[in-house]
Amino acid sequence: MDAVTASPNIGRSIPRLEANDKVTGRIEYIHHLRLPGMLYGKIFRSNVPHARIKSVDVSAAEAVEGVFQVVTIDDIRKVIPHPYYGPAFHDQPILADGKVRFAGEPVAVVLATDKRIAEQAAALIVAEYEDLPGVFDEVDAMTSQTLVHDELKPAATFPDLQHLKGRKGTNIALDYHLVRGDVEEGFAKADHVFEHVFRTQQVMHTPMEPFVSVADAQDGSVTLHTASQGPSFVRIEIARLLGLPENRVRVRVPHLGGGFGGKLYIKLEALVTALSMVARRPVKIALTMEEQFFMVTRHPCTFTIKSGVNKDGRIIARHCEVVWNGGAYADIGPRVTQKAGFTSAGPYDIENVLIDSYAVYTNRPPCGALRGFGAPQTAWAYECHTDMIAEALGLDKIEFRRMNILREGRPQASGTPMVDAAVEQAMDHTLDLMNWKLPFDRGSGKIRRGRGVAIGFKGITAPTTSVAIVNLYGDGSCALYIGTVDMGQGSDTVMAQIAAEVLNIDPAAIKIIHPDTDVTPYDMGTLGSRSTYHMGTAVRLAAEDAKAKIAALAAELGLPEGTNAPLAELLRRKYGMQAGNIIGTGSFIPDYQKPDTKTGQTIKGTPFWGVGASGAEVEVDTETGHFTITKLVNVADVGTAINPKMVLQQLSGAAIMQLGFTTTENMVFRDGQLTNGSLADYKIPNLLDMPREFINDYTQSRQKDGPFGAKGAGESTTIALSPAIGNAIADAIGLFLPDLPITPESIFRALQDANGTPLAGE
Amino acid sequence: MDAVTASPNIGRSIPRLEANDKVTGRIEYIHHLRLPGMLYGKIFRSNVPHARIKSVDVSAAEAVEGVFQVVTIDDIRKVIPHPYYGPAFHDQPILADGKVRFAGEPVAVVLATDKRIAEQAAALIVAEYEDLPGVFDEVDAMTSQTLVHDELKPAATFPDLQHLKGRKGTNIALDYHLVRGDVEEGFAKADHVFEHVFRTQQVMHTPMEPFVSVADAQDGSVTLHTASQGPSFVRIEIARLLGLPENRVRVRVPHLGGGFGGKLYIKLEALVTALSMVARRPVKIALTMEEQFFMVTRHPCTFTIKSGVNKDGRIIARHCEVVWNGGAYADIGPRVTQKAGFTSAGPYDIENVLIDSYAVYTNRPPCGALRGFGAPQTAWAYECHTDMIAEALGLDKIEFRRMNILREGRPQASGTPMVDAAVEQAMDHTLDLMNWKLPFDRGSGKIRRGRGVAIGFKGITAPTTSVAIVNLYGDGSCALYIGTVDMGQGSDTVMAQIAAEVLNIDPAAIKIIHPDTDVTPYDMGTLGSRSTYHMGTAVRLAAEDAKAKIAALAAELGLPEGTNAPLAELLRRKYGMQAGNIIGTGSFIPDYQKPDTKTGQTIKGTPFWGVGASGAEVEVDTETGHFTITKLVNVADVGTAINPKMVLQQLSGAAIMQLGFTTTENMVFRDGQLTNGSLADYKIPNLLDMPREFINDYTQSRQKDGPFGAKGAGESTTIALSPAIGNAIADAIGLFLPDLPITPESIFRALQDANGTPLAGE
Repeated sequence: MDAVTASPNIGRSIPRLEANDKVTGRIEYIHHLRLPGMLYGKIFRSNVPHARIKSVDVSAAEAVEGVFQVVTIDDIRKVIPHPYYGPAFHDQPILADGKVRFAGEPVAVVLATDKRIAEQAAALIVAEYEDLPGVFDEVDAMTSQTLVHDELKPAATFPDLQHLKGRKGTNIALDYHLVRGDVEEGFAKADHVFEHVFRTQQVMHTPMEPFVSVADAQDGSVTLHTASQGPSFVRIEIARLLGLPENRVRVRVPHLGGGFGGKLYIKLEALVTALSMVARRPVKIALTMEEQFFMVTRHPCTFTIKSGVNKDGRIIARHCEVVWNGGAYADIGPRVTQKAGFTSAGPYDIENVLIDSYAVYTNRPPCGALRGFGAPQTAWAYECHTDMIAEALGLDKIEFRRMNILREGRPQASGTPMVDAAVEQAMDHTLDLMNWKLPFDRGSGKIRRGRGVAIGFKGITAPTTSVAIVNLYGDGSCALYIGTVDMGQGSDTVMAQIAAEVLNIDPAAIKIIHPDTDVTPYDMGTLGSRSTYHMGTAVRLAAEDAKAKIAALAAELGLPEGTNAPLAELLRRKYGMQAGNIIGTGSFIPDYQKPDTKTGQTIKGTPFWGVGASGAEVEVDTETGHFTITKLVNVADVGTAINPKMVLQQLSGAAIMQLGFTTTENMVFRDGQLTNGSLADYKIPNLLDMPREFINDYTQSRQKDGPFGAKGAGESTTIALSPAIGNAIADAIGLFLPDLPITPESIFRALQDANGTPLAGE
Repeated sequence: MDAVTASPNIGRSIPRLEANDKVTGRIEYIHHLRLPGMLYGKIFRSNVPHARIKSVDVSAAEAVEGVFQVVTIDDIRKVIPHPYYGPAFHDQPILADGKVRFAGEPVAVVLATDKRIAEQAAALIVAEYEDLPGVFDEVDAMTSQTLVHDELKPAATFPDLQHLKGRKGTNIALDYHLVRGDVEEGFAKADHVFEHVFRTQQVMHTPMEPFVSVADAQDGSVTLHTASQGPSFVRIEIARLLGLPENRVRVRVPHLGGGFGGKLYIKLEALVTALSMVARRPVKIALTMEEQFFMVTRHPCTFTIKSGVNKDGRIIARHCEVVWNGGAYADIGPRVTQKAGFTSAGPYDIENVLIDSYAVYTNRPPCGALRGFGAPQTAWAYECHTDMIAEALGLDKIEFRRMNILREGRPQASGTPMVDAAVEQAMDHTLDLMNWKLPFDRGSGKIRRGRGVAIGFKGITAPTTSVAIVNLYGDGSCALYIGTVDMGQGSDTVMAQIAAEVLNIDPAAIKIIHPDTDVTPYDMGTLGSRSTYHMGTAVRLAAEDAKAKIAALAAELGLPEGTNAPLAELLRRKYGMQAGNIIGTGSFIPDYQKPDTKTGQTIKGTPFWGVGASGAEVEVDTETGHFTITKLVNVADVGTAINPKMVLQQLSGAAIMQLGFTTTENMVFRDGQLTNGSLADYKIPNLLDMPREFINDYTQSRQKDGPFGAKGAGESTTIALSPAIGNAIADAIGLFLPDLPITPESIFRALQDANGTPLAGE
């Protein structure tokens, strides 16, 4: 669907600015970077999930020719006295410190002049462990006597986590609660009460470009070249670790080969910085694809959802208990717990809501942000639950949703009103694209066909800010300084289109200056679908500031208002030559803090709402459980599509990613050991896995305070996809599957368990 | 002399910010840079001064293993159709184009994977020439039938040179004339008329770091890493050559190992850019010390000065005819001709002045800017002339100066009034330091002692502008973005002191972001003593802009005015976390355009006046001509000394440089061939050449519109040094020497020629 606009640059699918450099192989990736004297690091990892380290014998490794040094936490402590980091909790040691907490945890690093030598030497390290009992399941961990950490250590930068400081004797890193109305009273008044439990599995980001970072530490300063989605965060956190001011930490980020939330916060950066300080040489670490399983993953969760429904189909009470398996280190898990927690009751207008959301430590690889930031896990539960209720009550599944949907202006569970959130429109557009009203062939014999729909929404990370600079040179040519990381989503192009629209120039003529904390101003990070809305607005403001300065210059030169003299001419008149700059700055912090209409309290909701709807048609072989997705429709509310083609690429990319998480991807553990940690065993979707018919589209809508009406679009089609497929499967086989992924085996087992009897509802 | 100031940061000799990186060898120089796939270029040069090129045989060179390609102008023309460049005239081909115009001109370049291979292969190139007559002397060239160029090609960027476009049949690139009053009438009225002719020699900049540039050209863009004093100029000129907008040309400059005016405008940059485009590989060229003699040098000149003086000692008329030997390509010579031309009558208040100043082409290596920009050559003439007149009239040389000196507010020859120009104070301070009033031992026998004083001034390059950015990060730490090149003069430190003074922070805590046209805003160049005044003011304005934004932020947060909350706290309050930036910008164009009080015309004089005075005591062996400078005093008007120690280093550095140009340095030519083109034969001063007593100091003064009262100081002690020594020698031996350098041989010959009879005056 094309945006209806008269703008020369908005709503135009111009080609990506970086396309030529990508196809010619000239684009910069950190993997290509070599610095003079640089050492290569290879990580030696724990092979047990929970243990005390008795000894680490590095002598054989250090004896290998070409090995510079083997580094353990003892070496690191000499240069960084408190070597613990993390965005929410300072719980993660740069290398294992006396204990290991998951199988795959970094214990030592071999530094060598050649990466193959480093790899060979790392295989010669011998560690002795004293095994400890492990806890792996999130629900077990809630009450287990096995503790992953002795004490909670929230980061000072998160004021709302300070009450947890020093808490002992628990695996619960954060318990988040939201109360609206009185849920018990609601259940008591309800005609029907339904409760279901859903589970999602642990999965990985799998960027095509694995993690890679290079550090070059000097006395009192460090430069990092890193594949990061959040250079400003890396700068601040490394400055904290090293006790340096921000201006002594430089973080450069060129293009990324994908991120999906994995490359946020500190990943390899603390380690390579410490290694460079120890070695007094530049140090590079590039992970293999397999090692990525031990870096960061998506939270598995167990979601118990209970709803009270009136006989006319109105949901009047809902209790959500979501337990998030955060793995051994919190990473950004506490924020996932809060942000996905507060929307876990779904996009429904419910008077009485109680949400309990728990971030829990276990002895698994750490979990963090992954496209959707918890929303897909909660939507899996609440939207399967929606169909199950409708099925049980004999209601039309669409009309049941429509009756309860959160409409514009109504307060969400947190009290934040729904503004510019096209939930119903997205559902309706999905139904249109599904031809929902046409007759549907339900199959026959062992081949059964079904279809399902789901909707969902997502709050956006907050508080958050972006700053942009527009610099116009003496000949009128333009550069845009932004900390937004172009990791394949096309942000360079979209930001250029926004600046071009304000300045009335060709977006392809704008040069994007890529993230470099010494050069580009602050940006909170390229995450949570925030860039188009936040940085896009900062870019708009910067361009408007530049435009105002151009007008002021024209006035200073005595030109009548509205004179359309080229900037180059104005500057030449002022300076007597081709000289000077017009520098516009823009800083954006969204005005999303609305008071709770009931309590009068200022609550932090969301700057804007991510909204998605999905529809699926499936065909299931009920004898074997094999199934085919014959049609998949995903619709997002993107406000205005700045670049429609790139928006559609984002929507389809997110959908394909979530399709993998729905049907094939699953990190399988046995006693805390990952059993399928390679791309040979862990199956991401390829072309042959695509639905037969695959439609991604967006609604006609407008985010009024977004740049030219735009909002973020990178995650919206991840939200409702899994339950749409789950509901379609249930529609086909008459059984709801509570766990992800949905596999032929899980369908087969469910059919076996049910002995052929359809299972539904209460 | 210490500045009298209560400022915490101004007038403080804090250590240089880059000192640690320099002494530990960590500082970045382009000589250290290697890019992947980079080729090394070695220049093959003409061995004849003026000739048509009949053929260039590169076959033997291209056959050498490791040679990538040998490039001539024909190859370059394929990538740059009009391969001519230059700051004032587009007269210089990137490689010789059909003709060579000086011995040493680049004819071809060998590109090889190794620099030694390139050097060996270059020796195998054979060029055949058809010799043309050459013209080498500037006075001969004025009327010679031998033409160095067929036609004048002024750059479009110099509007005042456009009348010269297409002029043919002359070696005079530019004739500059200044008329004040009626000089012929003045001579007619004068009681005495004196005329003398002075000559200065060709000398070289001799930076410790020879010229070096690396280009990395891509399709439609180029990145240059170069040891340049003028990255903004390089960007604009390369963009013009390539037909690209400015934002597709990136010019990075780290620290320089000296520049002295040599590394201004385009030097190796056009050549390496063209080579990188031809080869489609990064290309580096680093000159040897010897090759620097063929890159750019200081103009020799012949100065005929004629003065009409009243019997009471008032100078009432002066005619200056200055002929500047610009060598084969104009470089910035036309501007030297104008800028040094308009002050060539000296710092004297003369009613009738006629100045004729000529930039002349010859078949010598090109001449351009060199510390002093022509002022030392003209001061050599007018200040020896001053002593000769006083001697002839029996006047006290100091009182004669004092009677005629240009005092505050009086118009200089150009009509520009003297403002904040401490000429007399500098002279008086010099006299104090010389103990001028104490008895002076004049020697005896063959050893004669003498002393001399001289004063001088210099206009500063105009029109000109500087832009600066101050960026304050979330923790309050600060970075300063400036295009000023720190080439040893200490600009990083001074700019940090200025910003620190405004922002009330520690200058050592400020990070300087070095010139990179993709990062730092426009600066006209690091030249002509302009940085402290121009960029210093831009930095002050940028810091004040940031300060105003901080105050606005405090007000936005509801803090009472004058609240002294740390910036980190303000930003944390605004953003809810350590985030955001305060970005201040400052753009400075000096307000120097004062109307001529007589004509009402707007004339371009100078943004400020550089002022120097020198005094020397010498001891001469009249039998051999050997002499010793027993005492040398140099005093500059620097306004306020921001960093007194660094100012004194600048003053002594400039004085030592000019000492070499006064007594030892001389590029000796025979038939257009340089005969002493190596540092073994061309003698720059070393520690043993220092005066026995050597005092450099500055006056107490103030440049009212400079940053905290400061003005530039990098050239002031070059101006009056040579004539002070010349006058001291004359005082000792009773003979004035009209030519530089002053050598034992020139003294010996003068004494021989004069047959022992003192020669003076008319």
